[in-house]
Amino acid sequence: MGRIEDTSPGNVVDRIIHEVYTLCRENRAGELADYIPELAAVEPDEFSLCVATSDGYVYRAGNADTEFTIQSISKPLTYGLALADHGVDAVARKIDVEPSGEPFNEISLDPVTERPRNPMINAGAITSASLIQGADPAERFERLRRCYSLYAGRDLELNQDVYASESRTGHRNRAIGHMLRSFDIVSGDPDEAVDLYFRQCSINVTCRDLALMAATLANNGVNPLTRERALAPDLVERVLSVMTSCGMYDAAGDWITQVGLPAKSGVGGGVLAVLPGQIGIAVHSPRLDSHGNSVRGVQACRELSRTLELHFMHVTRAGRSAIRTSYSVSEVPSRQRRSGAELSTLATYGNRARIYELHGDLLFSGAETAVRAIAERGTDLEALVVDLRRVDDVSAVARRMLDTQHAELAERGCQAAVVDPDGRLGRTASRLGSGAAAGRVFVDLDVALEWCEGVLLDRHCTGERIPASITLAEHPLLTALTDDQFARVSGDLERRTVARGETIVHRGDPAAGIFLILSGQVSHLLPGGDGRTHRITSLSPGMTFGEMTTLIGGTALGDMRADTAVTLALLTPEAFAALTAQAPQLKSALLERLAAGAYAQLDAAVRSVALRGPAM
Amino acid sequence: MGRIEDTSPGNVVDRIIHEVYTLCRENRAGELADYIPELAAVEPDEFSLCVATSDGYVYRAGNADTEFTIQSISKPLTYGLALADHGVDAVARKIDVEPSGEPFNEISLDPVTERPRNPMINAGAITSASLIQGADPAERFERLRRCYSLYAGRDLELNQDVYASESRTGHRNRAIGHMLRSFDIVSGDPDEAVDLYFRQCSINVTCRDLALMAATLANNGVNPLTRERALAPDLVERVLSVMTSCGMYDAAGDWITQVGLPAKSGVGGGVLAVLPGQIGIAVHSPRLDSHGNSVRGVQACRELSRTLELHFMHVTRAGRSAIRTSYSVSEVPSRQRRSGAELSTLATYGNRARIYELHGDLLFSGAETAVRAIAERGTDLEALVVDLRRVDDVSAVARRMLDTQHAELAERGCQAAVVDPDGRLGRTASRLGSGAAAGRVFVDLDVALEWCEGVLLDRHCTGERIPASITLAEHPLLTALTDDQFARVSGDLERRTVARGETIVHRGDPAAGIFLILSGQVSHLLPGGDGRTHRITSLSPGMTFGEMTTLIGGTALGDMRADTAVTLALLTPEAFAALTAQAPQLKSALLERLAAGAYAQLDAAVRSVALRGPAM
Repeated sequence: MGRIEDTSPGNVVDRIIHEVYTLCRENRAGELADYIPELAAVEPDEFSLCVATSDGYVYRAGNADTEFTIQSISKPLTYGLALADHGVDAVARKIDVEPSGEPFNEISLDPVTERPRNPMINAGAITSASLIQGADPAERFERLRRCYSLYAGRDLELNQDVYASESRTGHRNRAIGHMLRSFDIVSGDPDEAVDLYFRQCSINVTCRDLALMAATLANNGVNPLTRERALAPDLVERVLSVMTSCGMYDAAGDWITQVGLPAKSGVGGGVLAVLPGQIGIAVHSPRLDSHGNSVRGVQACRELSRTLELHFMHVTRAGRSAIRTSYSVSEVPSRQRRSGAELSTLATYGNRARIYELHGDLLFSGAETAVRAIAERGTDLEALVVDLRRVDDVSAVARRMLDTQHAELAERGCQAAVVDPDGRLGRTASRLGSGAAAGRVFVDLDVALEWCEGVLLDRHCTGERIPASITLAEHPLLTALTDDQFARVSGDLERRTVARGETIVHRGDPAAGIFLILSGQVSHLLPGGDGRTHRITSLSPGMTFGEMTTLIGGTALGDMRADTAVTLALLTPEAFAALTAQAPQLKSALLERLAAGAYAQLDAAVRSVALRGPAM
Repeated sequence: MGRIEDTSPGNVVDRIIHEVYTLCRENRAGELADYIPELAAVEPDEFSLCVATSDGYVYRAGNADTEFTIQSISKPLTYGLALADHGVDAVARKIDVEPSGEPFNEISLDPVTERPRNPMINAGAITSASLIQGADPAERFERLRRCYSLYAGRDLELNQDVYASESRTGHRNRAIGHMLRSFDIVSGDPDEAVDLYFRQCSINVTCRDLALMAATLANNGVNPLTRERALAPDLVERVLSVMTSCGMYDAAGDWITQVGLPAKSGVGGGVLAVLPGQIGIAVHSPRLDSHGNSVRGVQACRELSRTLELHFMHVTRAGRSAIRTSYSVSEVPSRQRRSGAELSTLATYGNRARIYELHGDLLFSGAETAVRAIAERGTDLEALVVDLRRVDDVSAVARRMLDTQHAELAERGCQAAVVDPDGRLGRTASRLGSGAAAGRVFVDLDVALEWCEGVLLDRHCTGERIPASITLAEHPLLTALTDDQFARVSGDLERRTVARGETIVHRGDPAAGIFLILSGQVSHLLPGGDGRTHRITSLSPGMTFGEMTTLIGGTALGDMRADTAVTLALLTPEAFAALTAQAPQLKSALLERLAAGAYAQLDAAVRSVALRGPAM
């Protein structure tokens, strides 16, 4: 708790909140609620303000630990539990959700529907209380108390004095109870329902409690500190909706235009406001305006909404495309070595395989821009990759849209795949490195690019494909050598065969020599900052590895792992060093090829930076 | 227009919208408005549904070009123009913003305020009309008509028959007009205001028009097709707020819980709904429910809201940190060559310079997570870089939070900078390459990293700093050579001096040889996919460039540009080639260093990939 409470002095957010606090503290307008002595007895200039984030950090100004009774702020919470107990429709048959435009304690029902207009006026709230399930009054109250405690993240208690006073003087509410009974809105003893309502209003909370309750609603019903669920997400949505239209008594419209947050106030001086998905706000200041809302509470929420830009109709910018960038495999080839025939095929057909990199949150409007752009791309598309590595969140409708489009593309002969290492689409990812074989979900873009090229080559490449294996003489490192040089070096080379999945060089190994790949595929794997293993590149017959440590010393940065059975020829560091004195021209020829290979890899890296924006 | 209208058959969004359309088409409940013959005469089963995106693409089902009268959907538009003509406060003194809970045509004012309860009931709408400025009735109507046309993006016209009929039979509205006059809410001739109201209600629109009007409101008041502004953003916010609480007559609460979008309906059968920042929805179907809302209109909006997850209280996920990743310069060093003393200083103090990479939209809650994490980082931080390259949008409050925090850090001796090539913070960016000198805003991360290292080195490095210039003998490419080899190669080397800003190698040039940098700084610049020039790396004395083309041929990928005055030594391709025969061991020694240098660069690239996540 300590950590959560402590706000670092340097924090600019504290300062903004204290500015609002200081501004509103000057405001001494309003009167204490006085219908019971306990409420009239509180310190009128008590004032605190809390903002709770969706990770449970609480910014606080003033004395946020003063206890006061929750009063009407209990109404949405009890309504939520009633919804959970009986379902939305059953409750809707008893309580409407229309703003009343009448005082909260009106002894009347909607003349047409003969129901309480909404759960935020007393008639609606008493009806909600009557719907709480439980064997007896004590159990019903205990269920309410536990429910409220889940929102607050601590065990809340009843204020006996306030409760006693409420039930002594609550004739108006008893009248409402009996009216509800006479219309069969409340079944059973109406006084029991009214008594439960008195108790719920008399539960003690602090400003900090209310802020965490608000943050729990902002957090889809899960308390951000305890991680316990207080209410199901769909019910949270309904409760927040009713708070939006009816939360601030008959000042609802003014509140929506000036503050623009679902909220609820209580005559105890508390105000609770919610920015869904983001933050919870709570204010405690007992002086009330003519509507029964805390004067400073309304002002502070208005100031915070304005300063922090929290109004739910506030748009920082109009929707933008979810497409960050898009390119074809002819613009950004994979790192696979290709034969002449393959390269010319890809040069001709490469633009028929496209990668779309998406970013941000994929809600409907963002996903719409993506599927529209892909649909408009035309019918010559043969392979599609949707790169989701920079997507933060995918809504259900966006998932459906992508899945449907991929199915449609498949029907007309365009194969679709996603790069989705975090499984945002909920499809199962193919195993690292074997993506092309195992299916349509890749964890690395480069594997997806190889897969795209494969799709095009299988369809269009009639010429010679890259061989699965080459002879030593065919290895590019050696092709430029004279016969004598080749004879000499091939004598030095040790043959190795490696089983699939075996690690040839381990991260941290010292120089092991220069490896020439004759058959199979080798992956260069690196542990990422994000804890995942990244496949930096995939090497095929004719490529080499191990040069770096052999030439500049140091240790291997990552693992070299055999994706398939692999045959290798190894030039040990010793044999390589010996060449300097014994065959300088041979060594120079080898070095020239090695340097060329290294620069070719740099080249590929630089190209991808140029095409996909700066990232290194 | 054609392009905009045409929706590709394969588009999954069309299918979703047609599903909703087909479902609602079955619903034949409700009655036509019949208070004037023209409304009773329309085809009752007319039905169309449009969704307009914030880039002006219109999805359509049914006949979206049928014209009908806008009726009460005109109310928020006229209210908006009244707000623009007189300001929010002046209008608020005449019209309240509270939900009425009464029929729209009630002849009464709020008993307490003696004002119309809101602009969406007729009394409020007639008051709005009375506030429209203009020399005479004709000009006032023309201003309204032009205003509506801005929203729709085409020239809208009056339906003379409907207008004639409305004004023949509109006694109830005239009564309201005179009531308003008697309370001095309307000044001047009330019949004139009522007549203007009749005209505005009689303007013809299509379902497509309404969708674009909604998209204009969603788009902060700018029509997405014409890019013309119809209303100022702060007034859009107020109009949408009033639509939220009062838009659907006395079914507002039900609408908020079930649809959760600001909306307005009209007795002509139209419904307009807005998802701020994202999309506009319009439905036309003349059969009305008891509230006067289109039956299919309400149903279709409810279905779309559910299917597309548009409800404004719907939270796909709770807020997340805006920090994508964070690292120190000891984890990710710059590409600057460093002396031994410098390297050991950075090894010791490197963790006091940190880079925070942010992503997504920086609204309050996202920015809060970032400034809190940075504040909690502790007081030993000496240099901070906030990398905004992956940030989409920065709200005013987030900008203020970052600016304030950076000022605070500076006060306690921590220098702060941002990487902000798109100027999202509104600070002026330092010139490419000279960032370290020119200030606190960089366009490239690598320059920012160099700057961070510079801050630490200036404070803590007591040993030898990297020299501004070196002699040929000190150049690492040549240090390992024997005296004879050095004498031989230095004879081959051509000296060059280059002025600041001059381009040494141009993109596309053939091999020009191997350049050894003896003094000054050279940048490798590449045109990015995003059209900007990216600084791939910065080279300092002791480094080389030009090896790639010299060794593997091809042409230069980018420009090599002198950031300062530069002195170089050049080994031409001819001289380099000649070594093979004349001095193989010398060449082999050079190649070994070159290859090592190439792999060292690859190494750096691979490291940054590993630490900053996959990007190549």
